[in-house]
Amino acid sequence: MLPTEILLSEVGPRDGLQSVRATMPTADKLRWIDALHAAGLREIEVASFVPARLLPQMADAAEVVRHAVTLPGLTVMALVPNRRGAEAALAAGVHKLTMPVSASPAHSLANVRKTPQEMVEEVRAIADLRRDTAPQVRLEAGISTAFGCTLQGTVPEDEVIRLAVQCAQAGADEVGLSDTVGYANPAQVRRLFRRLRAELGDRAGAAHMHNTRGLGLANCLAAYDEGVTTFDASLGGLGGCPYAPGASGNVVTEDLVFMFEAMGVRTGIDLERLIAARAPLVAGLPGEPVYGMTPEAGLPKNFSQEYLRA
Amino acid sequence: MLPTEILLSEVGPRDGLQSVRATMPTADKLRWIDALHAAGLREIEVASFVPARLLPQMADAAEVVRHAVTLPGLTVMALVPNRRGAEAALAAGVHKLTMPVSASPAHSLANVRKTPQEMVEEVRAIADLRRDTAPQVRLEAGISTAFGCTLQGTVPEDEVIRLAVQCAQAGADEVGLSDTVGYANPAQVRRLFRRLRAELGDRAGAAHMHNTRGLGLANCLAAYDEGVTTFDASLGGLGGCPYAPGASGNVVTEDLVFMFEAMGVRTGIDLERLIAARAPLVAGLPGEPVYGMTPEAGLPKNFSQEYLRA
Repeated sequence: MLPTEILLSEVGPRDGLQSVRATMPTADKLRWIDALHAAGLREIEVASFVPARLLPQMADAAEVVRHAVTLPGLTVMALVPNRRGAEAALAAGVHKLTMPVSASPAHSLANVRKTPQEMVEEVRAIADLRRDTAPQVRLEAGISTAFGCTLQGTVPEDEVIRLAVQCAQAGADEVGLSDTVGYANPAQVRRLFRRLRAELGDRAGAAHMHNTRGLGLANCLAAYDEGVTTFDASLGGLGGCPYAPGASGNVVTEDLVFMFEAMGVRTGIDLERLIAARAPLVAGLPGEPVYGMTPEAGLPKNFSQEYLRA
Repeated sequence: MLPTEILLSEVGPRDGLQSVRATMPTADKLRWIDALHAAGLREIEVASFVPARLLPQMADAAEVVRHAVTLPGLTVMALVPNRRGAEAALAAGVHKLTMPVSASPAHSLANVRKTPQEMVEEVRAIADLRRDTAPQVRLEAGISTAFGCTLQGTVPEDEVIRLAVQCAQAGADEVGLSDTVGYANPAQVRRLFRRLRAELGDRAGAAHMHNTRGLGLANCLAAYDEGVTTFDASLGGLGGCPYAPGASGNVVTEDLVFMFEAMGVRTGIDLERLIAARAPLVAGLPGEPVYGMTPEAGLPKNFSQEYLRA
């Protein structure tokens, strides 16, 4: 029996903004997050707690979190690469921390200047910090480059699963798999999530898919078939991969919601309001391309999401 | 056990060209078809045999067919809406005829000025003609708007299956299902192809999916999971749906080949040569947008199709 409900985790305000050159003004970020929440999103990755000199787009992370936690029913998530970031994120009041642990040593060093093994130790340190200071906060680890790496090429599946198990043992509540560079294919997605669930059970986490080669939704479908119930996505597909010029990055939230809702799988998201949430994104990032086929094509005739208003 | 090989049926020179305003010069069409064949495509829908006053793009249909049949190993297909078209296509030497039979009465009347039932009778007439004059030629019926219709909205699944069975009884060798307007979702694709195969066995035919709302590849994956082994696709996604401005139409051949090859499912198509086959398309239709993520992003590092050269 496949799940009849899934959770869409919107990553645009963090993953998306981190990948664009421009800095979105704080006021626009808040309007955008409000619009996402109004559309029915229940989990949003709103910021990254990294030094402002490295990522000026995230200089307002604490302010964004302090606003987002005022929205009822929302789980406010932030990315933290290390203990210092986690301390700041917890001080700001986040509900959930997410940590990037790359399965490719080359990518890990380029991304966070640590080896995969050193990042497992960071997970442990932050899990301990969380336990001692904010036990209600959830901790997620996302295995980056789980399906391949532009620097390294193939990433051994055994290595991905080994690292995921280590993150869970180090204290992560859930461990997801990320197709950071858009290399994944549905057969591989099925294999890896099947193994992940066999090892971690309910602590097997989100599928974070990119649409770099057009396979984003097919890969999400493959993960869904394996029982995955949390999917990362980005409004307007914001978040291009720097290694794939012109190609969009993250799976487009609008198209993913349309796919699941059309299949009869509930997301809790109102598609029309979701499409309306593109307006503050576009206003805050003038000139930045946004992707998504469903917003352009419109909803099918007689397409109904009436249950949302019921 | 899922199929380890599939057949990609390229529909760009017919379906694609029929949807654009411009007329591609015959010499460019032939260069394009040559390039598709050189990339490994083994079935191409090269033309539509309809009155030139209705579709000036197809005025050279017989000439295109006469050239295409000189390419070794190629199955040359043409669309025919009626007996007169079939006679002309057979005279030109096609290997396979395909007939559009719409499950939506409104769409059927708009498209071919006949009801679905009248089209079943056309299938019967052409099956008889084929039997008497060219028994080696294959006859396919494609059920249009099988997943919904922009004019009618929902199309009853029972009606789609009933029509497919009638087409097979009337003499079609294979009956496929077409998502003419891009309404299909993976759950529906699975349901309908499962029923089609239960009714028709090996005469259950191709999946013809559109990417109007971004679900094209996910729907192809769903059809593959149900045992479908023939997939229509269009180079560069040529073939926009007039009801969905700005949205691409047919599933992009390049992305579909990448998906299956990455999964280890053989298509017989060389991706680099396939991407090179975009050049004559672009040259013959200046200014026309072409789609496809894989050509923009490039192939993954270490991605190999070495078996093709083995």
